[in-house]
Amino acid sequence: MNVRINGRLRHFRTVSFDSDTNSVHLIEQRLLPHEFKVIATADFHETAEAIHDMIVRGAGAIGATAAYGLAQGARAFRGTNPSKFGQHVKKVYQTLKAARPTAVDPVTAMELVRATMKRGESIEEQQALALAAAEEFANDDVRHCRDIGRHGAKLIRSGMNVLTHCNAGWLAFVDVGSATAPIYAAHTQGRKFHVYCDETRPRSQGATLTAWELAQEGVSHQIIADNAAGHLMQRGKIDLVIVGSDRTLGRTGEVANKIGTYTKAVLAHRHGIPFYIAIPLSTIDWNLCRGFDIPIEERNESEVLGAWGVGNAKSKTRNAVAARTYVRVANPGSGALNPGFDVTPPELITGIITPAGIFKPKDLWRYRRGLQAVAG
Amino acid sequence: MNVRINGRLRHFRTVSFDSDTNSVHLIEQRLLPHEFKVIATADFHETAEAIHDMIVRGAGAIGATAAYGLAQGARAFRGTNPSKFGQHVKKVYQTLKAARPTAVDPVTAMELVRATMKRGESIEEQQALALAAAEEFANDDVRHCRDIGRHGAKLIRSGMNVLTHCNAGWLAFVDVGSATAPIYAAHTQGRKFHVYCDETRPRSQGATLTAWELAQEGVSHQIIADNAAGHLMQRGKIDLVIVGSDRTLGRTGEVANKIGTYTKAVLAHRHGIPFYIAIPLSTIDWNLCRGFDIPIEERNESEVLGAWGVGNAKSKTRNAVAARTYVRVANPGSGALNPGFDVTPPELITGIITPAGIFKPKDLWRYRRGLQAVAG
Repeated sequence: MNVRINGRLRHFRTVSFDSDTNSVHLIEQRLLPHEFKVIATADFHETAEAIHDMIVRGAGAIGATAAYGLAQGARAFRGTNPSKFGQHVKKVYQTLKAARPTAVDPVTAMELVRATMKRGESIEEQQALALAAAEEFANDDVRHCRDIGRHGAKLIRSGMNVLTHCNAGWLAFVDVGSATAPIYAAHTQGRKFHVYCDETRPRSQGATLTAWELAQEGVSHQIIADNAAGHLMQRGKIDLVIVGSDRTLGRTGEVANKIGTYTKAVLAHRHGIPFYIAIPLSTIDWNLCRGFDIPIEERNESEVLGAWGVGNAKSKTRNAVAARTYVRVANPGSGALNPGFDVTPPELITGIITPAGIFKPKDLWRYRRGLQAVAG
Repeated sequence: MNVRINGRLRHFRTVSFDSDTNSVHLIEQRLLPHEFKVIATADFHETAEAIHDMIVRGAGAIGATAAYGLAQGARAFRGTNPSKFGQHVKKVYQTLKAARPTAVDPVTAMELVRATMKRGESIEEQQALALAAAEEFANDDVRHCRDIGRHGAKLIRSGMNVLTHCNAGWLAFVDVGSATAPIYAAHTQGRKFHVYCDETRPRSQGATLTAWELAQEGVSHQIIADNAAGHLMQRGKIDLVIVGSDRTLGRTGEVANKIGTYTKAVLAHRHGIPFYIAIPLSTIDWNLCRGFDIPIEERNESEVLGAWGVGNAKSKTRNAVAARTYVRVANPGSGALNPGFDVTPPELITGIITPAGIFKPKDLWRYRRGLQAVAG
């Protein structure tokens, strides 16, 4: 998508590859929204570190980063011994996998790259195929998001107020995003509407990342406290809700997403407001039978007890990371409980926007053969 | 209630009066939860400033502060001319009223003091009556809160998890609080239960004031993000919700309270969890006919766009006010919408806990004669 630099729009992907320098280019997301910077990793070790250190986050984005990292590592090999090359690639794979051990996307992406590499006979051929496969993975990610946008844009009419929660934007993917894809598509088509971004405590991804994205694209928006959406719905000021999902159960239509999503679904249901989930097909879990069995990560209490931001220190330094400060907001003697995700049942979800079209949550299972075929 | 100072519990009211020094004593609430300090105002000007500068906040607390301030001003008069005394008292009244022009409680409290003063014949008698009336107002506030606690404590059983929102605690009253009154009463009666404090963005009164209060009293508690309550209810981890109210409509049973209250009521209703409002009778509005007509204050967007807390600066200074920092969390290019209150309809409210007992919201109007008589 586009970034405003000195008043001019320039296009960037969240993740891209420079074959001349053999480096992965990443938007340094820890600096956002206070500073925009693209970093280039010198080798696969730095790429793994970038995943580990959360320079890049979001399912699609870390999948593509790992795929490019594997190609980067393979292309850096300077020998002629196929067996040593194989060992080297294995080491690169393990290093990138270990950077975010619980994530499934880097593994899926790197398996695709490895499978493609096997078609090559020489080391050179395999190196070229690795990069081609990584590019394909990244391009597919973008194409899927564009398809989500194409289907979802029909839901957004001029004059509407749209609510979104957390960041399922282009920063979480290679480009375009999932929950934001219909918003960008409708905006590009010239429709005039307004977006409310839930702040999304405790990590505030709505106030920081989604608001930053929408500002770059010139989409009319305001940040609201997570507490405010109910009141706005009651007063008729929200017409549509679109959010992303970390995991959707194909068998039941239950949706796991950032904490607070369930609350917004309950509110939307009460007010008869359409509530949509936008997802790439790769996030559908076809195995799990009960949403209750989705493990809910309990995150560190410090996220709830304080906030990260830029204070007066900013004037003293031009380095936004250095200027970003954690402040303790809460009573020093109190602890916190910090569940990271919640699960929304299918009866609260109007539809699931996928690259293959919009489905009722309960219909995913009926169309599983087709959806699994499209997902590859 | 009690404050832990060097490991020992000492009793404090939020507002009290020292007749020897003719000064109002106030807990400096802007320092909480990071520092506990009681300030003494030297004259009625300083008392008015304390109200204006939010050293003291909350309906009951500012009512009592204004009542004491009026007595303080009257007692400082050093003359014998009754007419000049009358002019002086009027000036004191106007000064205190202007400190928080939209609040109704200071006016109600000062009218009570003025009415009582009229019974005195000499200046000395009127000065004494002013203080007696202010003390009576403060003591009534405490008694009403204790009565709320007595009625509400029956709802809390051992093993329960209780959710509260914002701060309707003793810091908002002279003592005990409204929503917290049942909690403190049940705790004193030896029942073992756990309280979840909604953080209550954007001003975080739950994470700061309520959590601080509960920590002082030794009540088991944890702070949660406002986004988390829905998930906890879904998993059966919340058994009861008690919140306060700024204004309750006697004709309809609709309740205006801090933004986010409505959301919690909708969630509790879905899960069959009892949802109670705890209020002194003085906050019932017997005139307004529609909740929709309650003016909803739109507060400054900076509250949503950032947070106040204590950063590393704390180590450099012992002054908590100086150490408290505002950090900008949100995207610098984005604005916010910040409604301060919302309105909860009666069908979502299990009961309204008052000093006169627990009522169904729709029954307030039926019992209005009795309730208005008790309220005085």
